[in-house]
Amino acid sequence: MDYFYAPGRNHLFVPGPVNIPEPVIRAMNRNNEDYRSPAIPAMTKTLLEDVKKIFKTTTGTPFMIPTTGTGAWESALTNTLSPGDRIVSFLIGQFSLLWIDQQQRLKFNVDVVESEWGRGANLDVLAEKLAADRTHTIKAICIVHNETATGVTNNLATVRKLLDHYGHPALLLVDGVSSICALDFRMDEWGVDVALTGSQKALSLPTGIGIVCASPKALEATKTAKSVRVFFDWNDYLKFYKLGTFWPYTPSIQLLYGLRAALDLIFEEGLDNIIERHSRLGKATRLAVEAWGLKNCTQKEEWFSDTVTAVLVPPYIDSSEIVKRGWKRYNLSLGLGLNKVAGKVFRIGHLGNLNELQLLGCLAGVEMILKDVGYPVKLGSGVAAASAYLQNNIPMIPSRI
Amino acid sequence: MDYFYAPGRNHLFVPGPVNIPEPVIRAMNRNNEDYRSPAIPAMTKTLLEDVKKIFKTTTGTPFMIPTTGTGAWESALTNTLSPGDRIVSFLIGQFSLLWIDQQQRLKFNVDVVESEWGRGANLDVLAEKLAADRTHTIKAICIVHNETATGVTNNLATVRKLLDHYGHPALLLVDGVSSICALDFRMDEWGVDVALTGSQKALSLPTGIGIVCASPKALEATKTAKSVRVFFDWNDYLKFYKLGTFWPYTPSIQLLYGLRAALDLIFEEGLDNIIERHSRLGKATRLAVEAWGLKNCTQKEEWFSDTVTAVLVPPYIDSSEIVKRGWKRYNLSLGLGLNKVAGKVFRIGHLGNLNELQLLGCLAGVEMILKDVGYPVKLGSGVAAASAYLQNNIPMIPSRI
Amino acid sequence: MDYFYAPGRNHLFVPGPVNIPEPVIRAMNRNNEDYRSPAIPAMTKTLLEDVKKIFKTTTGTPFMIPTTGTGAWESALTNTLSPGDRIVSFLIGQFSLLWIDQQQRLKFNVDVVESEWGRGANLDVLAEKLAADRTHTIKAICIVHNETATGVTNNLATVRKLLDHYGHPALLLVDGVSSICALDFRMDEWGVDVALTGSQKALSLPTGIGIVCASPKALEATKTAKSVRVFFDWNDYLKFYKLGTFWPYTPSIQLLYGLRAALDLIFEEGLDNIIERHSRLGKATRLAVEAWGLKNCTQKEEWFSDTVTAVLVPPYIDSSEIVKRGWKRYNLSLGLGLNKVAGKVFRIGHLGNLNELQLLGCLAGVEMILKDVGYPVKLGSGVAAASAYLQNNIPMIPSRI
Amino acid sequence: MDYFYAPGRNHLFVPGPVNIPEPVIRAMNRNNEDYRSPAIPAMTKTLLEDVKKIFKTTTGTPFMIPTTGTGAWESALTNTLSPGDRIVSFLIGQFSLLWIDQQQRLKFNVDVVESEWGRGANLDVLAEKLAADRTHTIKAICIVHNETATGVTNNLATVRKLLDHYGHPALLLVDGVSSICALDFRMDEWGVDVALTGSQKALSLPTGIGIVCASPKALEATKTAKSVRVFFDWNDYLKFYKLGTFWPYTPSIQLLYGLRAALDLIFEEGLDNIIERHSRLGKATRLAVEAWGLKNCTQKEEWFSDTVTAVLVPPYIDSSEIVKRGWKRYNLSLGLGLNKVAGKVFRIGHLGNLNELQLLGCLAGVEMILKDVGYPVKLGSGVAAASAYLQNNIPMIPSRI
Repeated sequence: MDYFYAPGRNHLFVPGPVNIPEPVIRAMNRNNEDYRSPAIPAMTKTLLEDVKKIFKTTTGTPFMIPTTGTGAWESALTNTLSPGDRIVSFLIGQFSLLWIDQQQRLKFNVDVVESEWGRGANLDVLAEKLAADRTHTIKAICIVHNETATGVTNNLATVRKLLDHYGHPALLLVDGVSSICALDFRMDEWGVDVALTGSQKALSLPTGIGIVCASPKALEATKTAKSVRVFFDWNDYLKFYKLGTFWPYTPSIQLLYGLRAALDLIFEEGLDNIIERHSRLGKATRLAVEAWGLKNCTQKEEWFSDTVTAVLVPPYIDSSEIVKRGWKRYNLSLGLGLNKVAGKVFRIGHLGNLNELQLLGCLAGVEMILKDVGYPVKLGSGVAAASAYLQNNIPMIPSRI
Repeated sequence: MDYFYAPGRNHLFVPGPVNIPEPVIRAMNRNNEDYRSPAIPAMTKTLLEDVKKIFKTTTGTPFMIPTTGTGAWESALTNTLSPGDRIVSFLIGQFSLLWIDQQQRLKFNVDVVESEWGRGANLDVLAEKLAADRTHTIKAICIVHNETATGVTNNLATVRKLLDHYGHPALLLVDGVSSICALDFRMDEWGVDVALTGSQKALSLPTGIGIVCASPKALEATKTAKSVRVFFDWNDYLKFYKLGTFWPYTPSIQLLYGLRAALDLIFEEGLDNIIERHSRLGKATRLAVEAWGLKNCTQKEEWFSDTVTAVLVPPYIDSSEIVKRGWKRYNLSLGLGLNKVAGKVFRIGHLGNLNELQLLGCLAGVEMILKDVGYPVKLGSGVAAASAYLQNNIPMIPSRI
Repeated sequence: MDYFYAPGRNHLFVPGPVNIPEPVIRAMNRNNEDYRSPAIPAMTKTLLEDVKKIFKTTTGTPFMIPTTGTGAWESALTNTLSPGDRIVSFLIGQFSLLWIDQQQRLKFNVDVVESEWGRGANLDVLAEKLAADRTHTIKAICIVHNETATGVTNNLATVRKLLDHYGHPALLLVDGVSSICALDFRMDEWGVDVALTGSQKALSLPTGIGIVCASPKALEATKTAKSVRVFFDWNDYLKFYKLGTFWPYTPSIQLLYGLRAALDLIFEEGLDNIIERHSRLGKATRLAVEAWGLKNCTQKEEWFSDTVTAVLVPPYIDSSEIVKRGWKRYNLSLGLGLNKVAGKVFRIGHLGNLNELQLLGCLAGVEMILKDVGYPVKLGSGVAAASAYLQNNIPMIPSRI
Repeated sequence: MDYFYAPGRNHLFVPGPVNIPEPVIRAMNRNNEDYRSPAIPAMTKTLLEDVKKIFKTTTGTPFMIPTTGTGAWESALTNTLSPGDRIVSFLIGQFSLLWIDQQQRLKFNVDVVESEWGRGANLDVLAEKLAADRTHTIKAICIVHNETATGVTNNLATVRKLLDHYGHPALLLVDGVSSICALDFRMDEWGVDVALTGSQKALSLPTGIGIVCASPKALEATKTAKSVRVFFDWNDYLKFYKLGTFWPYTPSIQLLYGLRAALDLIFEEGLDNIIERHSRLGKATRLAVEAWGLKNCTQKEEWFSDTVTAVLVPPYIDSSEIVKRGWKRYNLSLGLGLNKVAGKVFRIGHLGNLNELQLLGCLAGVEMILKDVGYPVKLGSGVAAASAYLQNNIPMIPSRI
């Protein structure tokens, strides 16, 4: 029935796709229906309103595209830019690398600002470039808010400050795939022009919706953007928004109902509480890593990610063995090290609909794996460090007080 | 809980998204999992093998892209063609119109061959064009196998014959969205270079996978195709096929399991039996339409579609009233008339995982609606005509004999 | 995956278990939980309040026992009566027969009042017995409201009138298995002392909850009832009701959530609208039977059941062949003739969460089967007769107007 | 949507109902069907064969009764015994107490052999009674294999040895509710005459099937057993077994499919591997308890249960506060102390479809709770002790090697 069955729950700690809450699984457990009936537009309308809240925008226009994060990237770029446009993009890990690859293949002229993997975007270089760019040849700044490969969170507020400081009109395009709805993200306040995420990340849904949110300035940019686009064209959506039927082509009925349920749960918990919960989970994970005597791939505290922790292993250990062993012995799914950090790091995803005891079970599993592969960990040490913090900080469950 | 609840089952007779069988709904009822574990590649491998069977190809290469039919179109075009390329495309209804619109926006040079809506592709014009094109400036023929808006099935075998007759090397790109896995479709035999469908049609899944199958010649064409593409680029898939991990970006775990279950059901029923079943449902529907004294939008028998019937209503009736009434009074979902035939036709979709008694319930509903809107139908007449045919032709259910 | 797979929906027209609405299937799609947490009691409290509404009682006490209708029968009897107690019970078909068998095996002294199968309870005999019973030796009247085997609905109001007329204190115990929540049933108004139903009938849930409702007089009777009982003992429930934990032993978490969803749907549609819908479906079915030239097993209109129709077939046809053929050729599930009417009747169940087009599909199927087995039916005739009535009587769906 | 929502998974560690594996939840996600069609009997036949394997019997006859464990008890007693029959029954905790209460209310003459709660059945007293009972007035020995309230497992092999030693013909009736399919249980080898369990325990299903298995001797006893029974009467089942339709009344379609899936998973894992897994989980839990400096309610190692651990708390702590806090702060469901040990113990259930990392998450949670309520636990100590054992003993997952 299943491929490679194992008893008990799979402990899913890759940084996406993440655990789907039961109420959302339930909401999606349904037959197809006619998306041109009054029901789907009525629901879509509520989704478009509510999805803006997780971007913290009131002025943005959201698009819920039947695609993945990669498609959402493409949509962000092709709707606002023209081939040959100069953009500044930060290479700090595998996902920013892939986005830059896409930018280049889409024929943009990319100034790649590279950092060592484990470090955040080099904003000093950005400042220099902005300062030098008196004629505003830079059309967009592309930045990954949270680099999933290295567990690095970039400081978007500073990016905005720099743009404002230099009075630079470049668009600010943000990949929020592993941040939005989990980390502090403020589209309007930070003047983000295009922000995007994928349904299978902090929203805790299956893969299948790339959610892109465009500022008025970004929408304005579509009028002159010459990049060829059809499937990803926002204008087709806007046309159907006006008609009140909302969909230029067939959406997934199931994902829409799932998104409705997911948003309901998010608002029930409270977006700020969710961000706080991710902060707790991130902190607890880092305390465990420290207790194990291992290093975080992320080099400075200012970049620590609360949705994923990349753990460096000693040179005599192949980190991919850790991931394999998790799956083969403990039914625990951890993230591989990718590209430059392959074999060197394994990753613990701690985003989405997840609670503290789930994380502690994972940490206990990682300890046993570390011992399996020959690292002299003190069993229980990471759990103890994480628990000590959590026991002081977990709030009572509001609905149950 | 639901939007606009009504007791009993919704009778879903739009030509997609169609009814999902219970075993497929069950198969998708699951949490996310790590798509980089050995499980998903192991399953994906079986899917790629098995999905070729519904295209009737052994030489084609399939791509299961997380997108819709519109995305599958774009993938077919951009992977094989370059901007400016001359293509011949047939406009016979709303969906061929939309594809042509996409072709033009993607900067191809489109020879539009238009037919009256209700008629098939004008293959005489194709013959002329091929005959005249001694220098092979035509790079591709784009044709919708089954035009969902008018219920017209084109004759692909003839298209192939013409290409062969003139020794013309143009690629043959086929939209099989409402045909593949329901109508007779033979990718290899008919020399189709790119064929495509969407998961929510005859495969009876939710929306979310655009399945594209490319011939060796089409794969060869990717090497020179200059259309800009990233998300839809087959080469990214091919790279991961070689790695054995299969996915350049995150697929929907749920849809993959759903596709596995759907293919299992398809092979259990037998592809030829499925085509035969659609033939029965199509014929029964047309007999009912005839008994009601109404006309089929499709003008000739050679074009009759076995997956959707577009029914012309008398001028004094607005066909959209029929669709509205179905939803508001009978919990019956019918297809609207689109664009040129808006108000003039309503559509009965009879594709996917559907049986005869479901169709007869629908036909009984249509009769009552027709009476509701003032058409002097004899109640029971269509059901009688359809039943008379079906009672002679339905086979015993093989598993139950 | 499934046993004996067939394409499309199974058309389920046995008089129970009946079709479960999708929202209820969804509500039950969940893991177990601790039934001693605050959640289950909180939900149970709402269920106990709301379930009374479908019995039309404000004074009754409901018990939701993890059992079937047979267990609910046993609970009704053993909680209110003592071995040797004289009861009057009406034998009018297979289910009343089975209840009487139970009554006898539980050591009650049963006055069996038999009617020809197809006729209602002989209330003249009841009147005689009550008149003669000056010393009130009769402790209870047991009556099946709707005999599922023959499609006969008994007149409970008259039973109450007779008891009142003779000032007789006998308890009135009613099997409402195939009536409550589908037919007009008024526990308080008709002075019913114990009424019961099963979750898989008009409530449209899976089998597994026997719902029993006891009047204050019935509760009083428990104090002197000497029948041995433990699992079915109401007092154990009452003890836990007082404690506020509600459950003397483990309930099915899934069925409780399902019942919550089912009740929500019932109240959304409105109990009176549900009864009206069953009346339409019953009437339409009988019109079809008449159009086919067949006889209803129910001999008089006053006993016609709106939840199940037992159809008499001509002597040269074996009705079980009709049922078999439905399953083997049309994926249609009809009810067999039972016991005395085996081979002579087949049954169309039309209860639960069902709409008119579903029924018309079934009727079209029955017509084809009748032809299959050699009965000279005019195809379409039954559907025409039913449609003519329905088209005049189906209301607009309130939520969609 | 849910009552008292909390983010992430509920950690379900009550000793039943237990976690349902996803494939089983999926299998139950379905509409009703006709239980008189060929499908349900065909499946039932496989269930009756396969369910015997988890009792380790080839000669027993199983009954899958739509009821709970309490109903299964009643079925075991009433089918084999007559009112007034002398039985020996061991009182060692809340569930044996409840069974004895039932035995007395069913009018048996019960020799209650009481032990201090936390100790096993006093088999010395049994030996005395058997020795003294030359005339075989004792008709049955009733024993709970695993007392869920105190975490005590009785030695059934010794009970059988005593019966054999004294050549005593008393029936041996065993409550295996929290043991069968989790602990070593051997119906045939130990000469158990009636064994029973409930679907919501080690089988990891919802509540709703009481599975009772009867030896040939137990079946023989039904012929003379005078206890009144109808719903629970095995003879009604046997009658329908002979007919090949299997069900005297309506079963739950969903639970049957669920049981089919559960058995498939059990056989895939292997019953002996399952018992081994429970042994690991039990041992790990006890090591944690020891590391916390707390006492096991179970007084001797020979009685330690591998499915549930009852933990004694110091007198200054109310154990029910621990359970409350688990639910209110950590989304962790622990078992309350019941009756005599109320306030004194809390219970960790570790049975059913559960793996080691789930347990470690629970143990980490218990540690934080202990600290919350003022017990001076060293955080991480229990997890460390459990992990040290587990890391040495968890096998590779066979399907993934």
